[in-house]
Amino acid sequence: MPNPSLLILSGDGIGPEVMAEVRKVIGWYGAKRDLVFDVSEDLVGGAAYDAHGTPLHDDTMTRAQEVDAVLLGAVGGPKYDDLDFSVKPERGLLRLRKEMDLFANLRPAQCFDALADFSSLKRDVVAGLDIMIVRELTSGIYFGEPRGIIEDGNERVGINTQRYTESEIDRAARSAFELARKRRNKVCSMEKANVMESGILWREIVQKVHDEDYPDVELSHMYADNGAMQLVRAPKQFDVIVTDNLFGDILSDCAAMLTGSLGMLPSASLGAPMANGRPKALYEPVHGSAPDIAGQGKANPIACILSFAMALRYSFDQGAEADRLEAAVEQVLADGLRTADLLGEEGATPVSTSGMGDAIVAAL
Amino acid sequence: MPNPSLLILSGDGIGPEVMAEVRKVIGWYGAKRDLVFDVSEDLVGGAAYDAHGTPLHDDTMTRAQEVDAVLLGAVGGPKYDDLDFSVKPERGLLRLRKEMDLFANLRPAQCFDALADFSSLKRDVVAGLDIMIVRELTSGIYFGEPRGIIEDGNERVGINTQRYTESEIDRAARSAFELARKRRNKVCSMEKANVMESGILWREIVQKVHDEDYPDVELSHMYADNGAMQLVRAPKQFDVIVTDNLFGDILSDCAAMLTGSLGMLPSASLGAPMANGRPKALYEPVHGSAPDIAGQGKANPIACILSFAMALRYSFDQGAEADRLEAAVEQVLADGLRTADLLGEEGATPVSTSGMGDAIVAAL
Ligand SMILES: CC(C)[C@H](C(=O)O)[C@@H](O)C(=O)O
Ligand SMILES: CC(C)[C@H](C(=O)O)[C@@H](O)C(=O)O
Repeated sequence: MPNPSLLILSGDGIGPEVMAEVRKVIGWYGAKRDLVFDVSEDLVGGAAYDAHGTPLHDDTMTRAQEVDAVLLGAVGGPKYDDLDFSVKPERGLLRLRKEMDLFANLRPAQCFDALADFSSLKRDVVAGLDIMIVRELTSGIYFGEPRGIIEDGNERVGINTQRYTESEIDRAARSAFELARKRRNKVCSMEKANVMESGILWREIVQKVHDEDYPDVELSHMYADNGAMQLVRAPKQFDVIVTDNLFGDILSDCAAMLTGSLGMLPSASLGAPMANGRPKALYEPVHGSAPDIAGQGKANPIACILSFAMALRYSFDQGAEADRLEAAVEQVLADGLRTADLLGEEGATPVSTSGMGDAIVAAL
Repeated sequence: MPNPSLLILSGDGIGPEVMAEVRKVIGWYGAKRDLVFDVSEDLVGGAAYDAHGTPLHDDTMTRAQEVDAVLLGAVGGPKYDDLDFSVKPERGLLRLRKEMDLFANLRPAQCFDALADFSSLKRDVVAGLDIMIVRELTSGIYFGEPRGIIEDGNERVGINTQRYTESEIDRAARSAFELARKRRNKVCSMEKANVMESGILWREIVQKVHDEDYPDVELSHMYADNGAMQLVRAPKQFDVIVTDNLFGDILSDCAAMLTGSLGMLPSASLGAPMANGRPKALYEPVHGSAPDIAGQGKANPIACILSFAMALRYSFDQGAEADRLEAAVEQVLADGLRTADLLGEEGATPVSTSGMGDAIVAAL
């Protein structure tokens, strides 16, 4: 069997810094656990635009389709704010998601006990929080046609289209139910079926998939506005949340912020199984490129390292090794090591980006 | 001059109960301040459906167009969950908004000092919070065509259309800038211009209105997902937020929940000036119909009473009387009076829905 292959796309801002720490972790698995990865690197986002005039070169796209998993850092920055829509850094990421058909975006919102006080919410509301948001990632208003800015009479009109087929909803729902079975067996589906027909179809298909194939999972439905409220009011009522691309974007960021430590949160974007049985997959931290702190050794590499842990679990069937890596992260946190985003407590030991990476490798 | 006219649409669930308390307040203004309103009542939502088979009778729609202001309670309930989309209780409300062209939905998210501990957020994060969200209310994905569930090949597709014209964005932006000038002079506009062309046009027009006519107001732009995060992280950074219909639905509910007391939050939906100079207007509490507690004297009438205070301010140019009413509400809260939704502190005095209404009238 060939070594599993990884394509690293560090991207912009703090992307390269945090990814450098992931490389240390990958190195450790090769040296100590005989888990050797074939690693290649390429550009995405603003970095790709600077080099090639496009946020994702076709060769990079081809390579992403071939590897077992893509690890992405972050894209974007003020330097690219005035670029045309079609070549903005985000388009590179959106193209990867779409062409790899990564329909299931898994966004855990977990509150680390050692960090619960960083939340703007009261400790008892968030301590122990462990939600998994499954966001549909390849359809909906992000990709629907028609779209654009058109002339209509004597003014312009901005248009986007929300469009969901039964099968798109079906496969997102299945991902959510499968995950729930390995967790607390509860799924809450969110839409605006009281206002949007696409939400009516969403609700109907999620219910159908449930009734036919997952009757053992507890299913509820909630309007997305109420979902936002309930996330703020009592987030621990949720186990798995499944929702569409746009609601998922907003609700998962809301959920992420509840935990108080954005620098800790990973994500996985999964597609259909490839010939070797592994799903098409891209792993990335939830945080952005944070251009304001880039290059200063202030970035927290944990979200990116935990994204690699998700890769171990979902792409390489190494659940025990993923657990090991997650335990190492909890260990360094329990030891009081903190990057700049997590300073403020008594007795914490400040560390740089690379100091944190080294400590995690040592804890492994 | 004829008396100003009010149309009361109590609707469903706790709507009639909370509205009964507003009627006491209206009565007080007639008796004690010589502010006599011509009040008529009619049905909306499930109540209208039960009587007429439609969530808003045409005669009610006509009457709503004629009066100076509409006061609405709440619509919806489990009894109506299985009705066809076209006659669901919500359609009555959406028809009022659309046909009265109530494009500016004002949703204050204010944290009452006496109630800050009810928030799931830490006291210092929310104490003194005072945000005004201006949500565009008559366009966007709520009303855009094409929409529906269609057959495409061998499966169904759910479709909705986000559609914003320049003039629709222009007038929503103006409302926000005007309000900001009477507050802390700051507007943050939220969209997903990195993903949606309608968001690009939104950002461009808000900026243009600013540069041409409101250069004195501080304007910033934020992606809506980051907006949700920032609302949770540090809501006091905001003064006025302006956003579209769908983002506004979710973000305003998120903001409302930050305050911890949904039963306290009013809203105003305003349109263009009528012949008498008053804007078309509908006032309603942010909370829903809460069918689970309906008819038990547990509902908090304050949100609905404060909606009437907004009517005094925005429809009837009675800012001082609105201040008086708001002060009366703060007074009864400071006195420790609490409806069932706000119990839990030491030393609070439990009151029923009507007990709260009576106390506010007494405080006036
Ligand atoms: C960068 C942006 C295009 C992206 C999105 O909107 O999906 C981001 O916000 C995310 O959630 O991954
Ligand atoms: C009841 C529903 C149609 C409505 C909406 O989605 O606008 C409500 O959530 C609101 O925010 O007023």
